[in-house]
Amino acid sequence: MKKVGIIMGSDSDLPVVTKAINVLKELDIPYQAHVFSAHRTPEQVSEFTKSAKENGYGVIIAFAGMAAHLAGAVAANTVLPVIGVPCKSSNLDGLDALLSTVQMPTGIPVATVAIDGGANAGLLAAQIIACSDEALYSKLKQKRENDALKVLKKDADLQEKL
Amino acid sequence: MKKVGIIMGSDSDLPVVTKAINVLKELDIPYQAHVFSAHRTPEQVSEFTKSAKENGYGVIIAFAGMAAHLAGAVAANTVLPVIGVPCKSSNLDGLDALLSTVQMPTGIPVATVAIDGGANAGLLAAQIIACSDEALYSKLKQKRENDALKVLKKDADLQEKL
Amino acid sequence: MKKVGIIMGSDSDLPVVTKAINVLKELDIPYQAHVFSAHRTPEQVSEFTKSAKENGYGVIIAFAGMAAHLAGAVAANTVLPVIGVPCKSSNLDGLDALLSTVQMPTGIPVATVAIDGGANAGLLAAQIIACSDEALYSKLKQKRENDALKVLKKDADLQEKL
Amino acid sequence: MKKVGIIMGSDSDLPVVTKAINVLKELDIPYQAHVFSAHRTPEQVSEFTKSAKENGYGVIIAFAGMAAHLAGAVAANTVLPVIGVPCKSSNLDGLDALLSTVQMPTGIPVATVAIDGGANAGLLAAQIIACSDEALYSKLKQKRENDALKVLKKDADLQEKL
Amino acid sequence: MKKVGIIMGSDSDLPVVTKAINVLKELDIPYQAHVFSAHRTPEQVSEFTKSAKENGYGVIIAFAGMAAHLAGAVAANTVLPVIGVPCKSSNLDGLDALLSTVQMPTGIPVATVAIDGGANAGLLAAQIIACSDEALYSKLKQKRENDALKVLKKDADLQEKL
Amino acid sequence: MKKVGIIMGSDSDLPVVTKAINVLKELDIPYQAHVFSAHRTPEQVSEFTKSAKENGYGVIIAFAGMAAHLAGAVAANTVLPVIGVPCKSSNLDGLDALLSTVQMPTGIPVATVAIDGGANAGLLAAQIIACSDEALYSKLKQKRENDALKVLKKDADLQEKL
Amino acid sequence: MKKVGIIMGSDSDLPVVTKAINVLKELDIPYQAHVFSAHRTPEQVSEFTKSAKENGYGVIIAFAGMAAHLAGAVAANTVLPVIGVPCKSSNLDGLDALLSTVQMPTGIPVATVAIDGGANAGLLAAQIIACSDEALYSKLKQKRENDALKVLKKDADLQEKL
Amino acid sequence: MKKVGIIMGSDSDLPVVTKAINVLKELDIPYQAHVFSAHRTPEQVSEFTKSAKENGYGVIIAFAGMAAHLAGAVAANTVLPVIGVPCKSSNLDGLDALLSTVQMPTGIPVATVAIDGGANAGLLAAQIIACSDEALYSKLKQKRENDALKVLKKDADLQEKL
Repeated sequence: MKKVGIIMGSDSDLPVVTKAINVLKELDIPYQAHVFSAHRTPEQVSEFTKSAKENGYGVIIAFAGMAAHLAGAVAANTVLPVIGVPCKSSNLDGLDALLSTVQMPTGIPVATVAIDGGANAGLLAAQIIACSDEALYSKLKQKRENDALKVLKKDADLQEKL
Repeated sequence: MKKVGIIMGSDSDLPVVTKAINVLKELDIPYQAHVFSAHRTPEQVSEFTKSAKENGYGVIIAFAGMAAHLAGAVAANTVLPVIGVPCKSSNLDGLDALLSTVQMPTGIPVATVAIDGGANAGLLAAQIIACSDEALYSKLKQKRENDALKVLKKDADLQEKL
Repeated sequence: MKKVGIIMGSDSDLPVVTKAINVLKELDIPYQAHVFSAHRTPEQVSEFTKSAKENGYGVIIAFAGMAAHLAGAVAANTVLPVIGVPCKSSNLDGLDALLSTVQMPTGIPVATVAIDGGANAGLLAAQIIACSDEALYSKLKQKRENDALKVLKKDADLQEKL
Repeated sequence: MKKVGIIMGSDSDLPVVTKAINVLKELDIPYQAHVFSAHRTPEQVSEFTKSAKENGYGVIIAFAGMAAHLAGAVAANTVLPVIGVPCKSSNLDGLDALLSTVQMPTGIPVATVAIDGGANAGLLAAQIIACSDEALYSKLKQKRENDALKVLKKDADLQEKL
Repeated sequence: MKKVGIIMGSDSDLPVVTKAINVLKELDIPYQAHVFSAHRTPEQVSEFTKSAKENGYGVIIAFAGMAAHLAGAVAANTVLPVIGVPCKSSNLDGLDALLSTVQMPTGIPVATVAIDGGANAGLLAAQIIACSDEALYSKLKQKRENDALKVLKKDADLQEKL
Repeated sequence: MKKVGIIMGSDSDLPVVTKAINVLKELDIPYQAHVFSAHRTPEQVSEFTKSAKENGYGVIIAFAGMAAHLAGAVAANTVLPVIGVPCKSSNLDGLDALLSTVQMPTGIPVATVAIDGGANAGLLAAQIIACSDEALYSKLKQKRENDALKVLKKDADLQEKL
Repeated sequence: MKKVGIIMGSDSDLPVVTKAINVLKELDIPYQAHVFSAHRTPEQVSEFTKSAKENGYGVIIAFAGMAAHLAGAVAANTVLPVIGVPCKSSNLDGLDALLSTVQMPTGIPVATVAIDGGANAGLLAAQIIACSDEALYSKLKQKRENDALKVLKKDADLQEKL
Repeated sequence: MKKVGIIMGSDSDLPVVTKAINVLKELDIPYQAHVFSAHRTPEQVSEFTKSAKENGYGVIIAFAGMAAHLAGAVAANTVLPVIGVPCKSSNLDGLDALLSTVQMPTGIPVATVAIDGGANAGLLAAQIIACSDEALYSKLKQKRENDALKVLKKDADLQEKL
């Protein structure tokens, strides 16, 4: 199975990254995670990204806050699908990271998820890999059904409470 | 090759949709486009989406403006990757559509691109399909190189102008 | 008397929902509350909503955060009045939920109240039911007068304090 | 049948108001429209509103731009349901009117629709009146189905074009 | 000397109001403070305001949060200068109150100060009264000089610290 | 009668300034207008402002766009009341000018009106001068009543049109 | 004299770039301009930037719109001062470019000017070079004085017009 | 070596200022810090700034919150490069300070860094001084490399943790 590459701009993003990793683990999807900064270690970002395909990666997820250039910097060096997770920093409530991640110019798409949306980034990566992996596709359908059952359970619980 | 499903909430989104279609045509990717509204024809959205996988679709792109629920409504009914394109309507400069598309709750990701980012939605769909299609992957690499050459050409032109 | 249907997208919205329930209880208006998710259990939303009229509901209140599609998903399946309550989640201060709830396209209105405005949603539901219920209308007038008296009392208290 | 009261803060709002009037006319709902300003003719707003119930009104729609106080000023004087339509003025793209209309304090709800959402305000008024008028309820269902047919027609047209 | 009328929409605004009162006390300016709500006790707002001039008021300060209509409602009923203080409530960081207070339509100005700017509202009221009161004008000049001295003192303290 | 000082940061603000001048002319209030820039001619701003009181000014209105510092720079040099008019420039719809004008720190108030609110700035200046000028106060009351009559006329016109 | 490097992400930014070039020409500062894209030709950006110092550049100005990563990508590869000019694209009024340019993480500063602020970027570059060039410093002082005279001239013109 | 002048509008900005001072200390760059307010002690701002060049300053950094005029007021009085640091105050998350600092009119640039970006302001000042100081330039390169090593170290740490 293709691996998911995970790059975070700073280890302060780890709590959001962990939500993605948990999803990948749950679905038995191989991944590798790195702290690479678009601005402080641009060479590492570029090297990792350019060789990602031949190193067995199928998707890359980039996590960054503030003027979040990381996902764009990754996307500039590969035509693998790149998922961007805008991370909320101390100011502006994540709006700066969201706009910096999603408003990419024509030619270099970044598949952006919600602010701090680590879990959905993991799921989206899985959905992309599942395009050519029926077993994973089935797991995803099963997981979706389980999620629905959890909501139904909460509804049932509520009926007792009220 | 898997098809790309294209759903627009209103035919007023067609200029943005056309940018995606042009990319898909250029890359010889089969697609089918529909006007289905999350609110006015929810059954059509749901039916199309639930049977998308078995009908040969690999990715779905949803275009919508204002309180843009369409991508989310599609994503709720499939575990195929769903790309959301927030379309600018007459007020609020597309911010309403962007937030309505990207801020999805955990469990139901939407791969969001820039406001009116039709071309990138097409490209992202191609990148996802290329995960299991080496020929398409090569085409995308070639296209990326061509884009770079166009920028280099513009730089050369500029040198003459200045 | 017609019932008020209450749907929340997640049980994390319960504190805001409770403010609506308290108003309905105070006015002796029957209600039923459910945890139904527009994205995780869309069938439940659709089934409940389509049969709401024949099951004796007169108004439906939907509570949701982030890309808050729930009120729109409900409104898409009924012509009963639908009230939307945008709930603040951890990022963006509820602006995402507000725009996702209020900016509905032509044809499918959602009566939107303030961010986290659970009490006003309950009151608005009561006002709508009171359109054909003079006793409830009188109760609402009385409640309004009581609210005014509370403000007058606070003004009197202030005069003593200053 | 109960009448719909329409109040606009300025006759510059008339294009948006007309969209509501057209819906009411189409549904044969009686209405009366006035130019009353929350700030320039507050007495007229207050008089009209206080006597609205006994004058046969069932719902009031208020249209205003900028620091849009009109819907709130109306709601302060009646317990009839009040619908607020934030109108875009030359600056800030209607965000000022939206927040001034929707962010009402506890006790005085305003059912807010989208910026410049005149048609939906008319529809919502109709839905509220239809709570006690089965014939109108049927008309609304029929209109909703017609709207869906129009979307289906557009989808069919698109298939020919592509 | 003319009095300053202080109206707050809710006693929860009292901490911000107190900052204005402290300035007025420091400058020996008479004032009277009330809890009057634009929406819950509109009659009190209107009565107080209409008779403000003959009751010896020279300026009125209005404090309100959310869809802050109070200053506008006061200004609609008097041609005395009206100062508006937008108060931050739990959501949207006071932006809703700011826009609802400052974006008044032509004909009804509200002199708006910063979000939660109680002290400046008190000062501005004093500056307005000082237009016809040389002694107060001198006090204000003195206070301004004292403020400057405090900054100079802080600068001197800083030099020692560094 | 005290004069109104008018300062604009750029002659591109003249259309908004003219709205203020028209109000002052209508009310026979003397004024003097200058193009002084907080950043390009700070000396002129400071000199004019420091001597404003002794030169017979009672109020100063400052007009500026973008990072609109002018009103604050004026207010820093006088304890006369200062009115700030945020002017919309080509980007950001005037939000930059509004926040730069209204969010003044404690000690230096600026009485801010709406974006491009020239007419209200003129009116507010008149209201402040009228604090010690009963004849002007009467004119303002008369003008307010005339404004109300215009709205009533528009309402009457509407009744004929509908 | 050290040269100013000018990089624009797209030749559509040329109108804003030209404002900077005009300032540099007026001050006889050598410059070279390029169309290099952070995403489409990242190698060119990186190569140019890494060798900028040894090629005689003293400052680099980067122009970009949308998710404007260019200034950051330049700054990541040099410790020369980098000036960022956020350019307004068709949506969001330049706010996306502003936040993407200014909100840089610790360690990699970008000296950001106003949206579309090409002229000021040129001036700021000149001011930086003037740190070690007294003749240029004098020219800048002279230019500043000329700017002041232009404002004074406009003020004089206004006095005649009014 | 030229000194860096540091001006903060209030001593409440000291935590952000300290981040700049720490960078300057680390790089052995002389500096002097002052509490000078654009509004409360404008004379001090103006005097310090006008004589900054002859007193050996090469760059000035200004820190201010809310309607942050300080950097602009400094820039108006010198053609030395001026760096502006928008500081977050209790409301609006620093957006007011950012726009008030960065949106400067043509002719008076302010080199703006991120909200609360004290460290980057110090670094940018150092980069400007390093334009004519090779030793400092080398130190900056070294520091940048050290920063990169820290990120590499964090990446290595992460590999062990995962």
